[in-house]
Amino acid sequence: MIETLYWKDNKLYLLDQRLLPHSIEYVECENYHEVIEAIKTMVVRGAPAIGVSAAFAMALAQLHDEDMTQAAHEIKSARPTAVNLFWAVDEVQKAVDDQVPAIVKAKQMMEEDIQINRKIGEHGNTVIDDGDCILTHCNAGSLACAGYGTALGVIRAAHQSGKNINVICDETRPVLQGARLSVFEMQQENIPVRMIVDSAAAFLMQQKRVDKVVIGADRVAKGGVANKIGSLMVAIAAKRYNIPFYVAAPLSTFDNNINIFDTEIEERSADEVLKINDKYITSEETLVENPAFDIVESELITGIITEEGIKKPL
Amino acid sequence: MIETLYWKDNKLYLLDQRLLPHSIEYVECENYHEVIEAIKTMVVRGAPAIGVSAAFAMALAQLHDEDMTQAAHEIKSARPTAVNLFWAVDEVQKAVDDQVPAIVKAKQMMEEDIQINRKIGEHGNTVIDDGDCILTHCNAGSLACAGYGTALGVIRAAHQSGKNINVICDETRPVLQGARLSVFEMQQENIPVRMIVDSAAAFLMQQKRVDKVVIGADRVAKGGVANKIGSLMVAIAAKRYNIPFYVAAPLSTFDNNINIFDTEIEERSADEVLKINDKYITSEETLVENPAFDIVESELITGIITEEGIKKPL
Repeated sequence: MIETLYWKDNKLYLLDQRLLPHSIEYVECENYHEVIEAIKTMVVRGAPAIGVSAAFAMALAQLHDEDMTQAAHEIKSARPTAVNLFWAVDEVQKAVDDQVPAIVKAKQMMEEDIQINRKIGEHGNTVIDDGDCILTHCNAGSLACAGYGTALGVIRAAHQSGKNINVICDETRPVLQGARLSVFEMQQENIPVRMIVDSAAAFLMQQKRVDKVVIGADRVAKGGVANKIGSLMVAIAAKRYNIPFYVAAPLSTFDNNINIFDTEIEERSADEVLKINDKYITSEETLVENPAFDIVESELITGIITEEGIKKPL
Repeated sequence: MIETLYWKDNKLYLLDQRLLPHSIEYVECENYHEVIEAIKTMVVRGAPAIGVSAAFAMALAQLHDEDMTQAAHEIKSARPTAVNLFWAVDEVQKAVDDQVPAIVKAKQMMEEDIQINRKIGEHGNTVIDDGDCILTHCNAGSLACAGYGTALGVIRAAHQSGKNINVICDETRPVLQGARLSVFEMQQENIPVRMIVDSAAAFLMQQKRVDKVVIGADRVAKGGVANKIGSLMVAIAAKRYNIPFYVAAPLSTFDNNINIFDTEIEERSADEVLKINDKYITSEETLVENPAFDIVESELITGIITEEGIKKPL
């Protein structure tokens, strides 16, 4: 399996996910500023992977004797929606306060992320039936994490346990993480996969060709789940056609203290929508709304698959 | 306004909509086979525009002394879902049987299409309020018709009557008719427009930022409406958030004799999804489902705006 990120000779190497699946290249980060830039520009994305990258960014800050409070503040500001980012920085800060070197904590968090995902996979597998066709949106796979994946971890676990599973990946505009990352991960493991445009999901559901939906999460809080834009539309359609809709996410994604509708939804650049493969799809002056996430209301969610079992939405 | 198609010196000229908005070029059709090819390859698209093009294809067949029965059969086979295609060919055939030259009938149908759209616009305007933000999917505009448009005709009529209207266009993957055509039409007429990825529609509805939805139709029949893939997802989301959902279509789109679920849904090529701006978005061997249309169930539809007023769905 391709590594999402690794640490070597006091540097963090991040797989440049913008180039997948056409090219496999790593971005070398020598200091925490470079990690922030990589998070902002989506070299690395996916809530758990952002969290682990942020932990290594803290390690880089300590290594170069930077002001840790300032570094923590800047790293947390890289992206606003995924709660794992804030959580990971706080975890490393706590370790540092307890005299644990940041790099030791970061490496431990990376290991734990994979272990947690395997547990999510085990619990998720209990709701997957042999022969299921599972639809997923965006990429909550090994590439969104230190490895294995959350939503795709559930699919991996089901496949590895011998169940005959088919996967449908939404392409996931605008950044096409479904097309470029989830399809690629499934193909790498020979899990049967087909791709659709995002807006075709309801049609397949209406035709009774989708048995389950499993997606990841950027934040779980009171009232629902924030996840990649389009998750809400999939959830509403799944509800209409009585298709179980699961969210797979580690407990570090839970933010019990807030209402999900108070989450800041990141608005990204118009060019992210307007430009595909370096060419504009319409006039470059076109006004665009480009919310990166949306909010799936709790009543649309069948269950949240965590490392400690399947929970009810908050 | 740019002409979708015109007839000159015994040839049909079709605006090459695949090149919009970057370039304005016409494809010259000297015989009916070239018109069929243009319909298949989506030089021309949109149910009413396909209908009028088919009528001119019949005229070309007659002009070149072709076997009219054979021509009618071949033209009807160009695309399977839009009922206007079959209707238009039958109308010209009837005229020819009555000794009316096909070209006379085709020109008349082109004129009528625009008149019908203006009436649809007038009736549609009665349900639009000053200040409305209207979401539309795909392109049911002047480019989908001989002129003026159905869904965008309603928006044009509301704008021209002095109402302050905002429009949100879904980009409409895979062929991006929303981005390339609807956005372009609105910009040409200075109607305020913003574009979103298809999967962002529900999020804006959840935030109460969409007041009405108006789309076109490829076929209206018992049980619902067939229209561009993604229409169903928009309709389900609109229902959830109590947003009126209108279909604007001429009566020639109605097929009272069939159940809408018996409509053949055209499955188009994988490359239409996989390739954007001449580059693959993922591995070119990726399996794809690419239904071009879906079916909006009648209970999701507030009303169907026709040239004879607003009708209940069948």
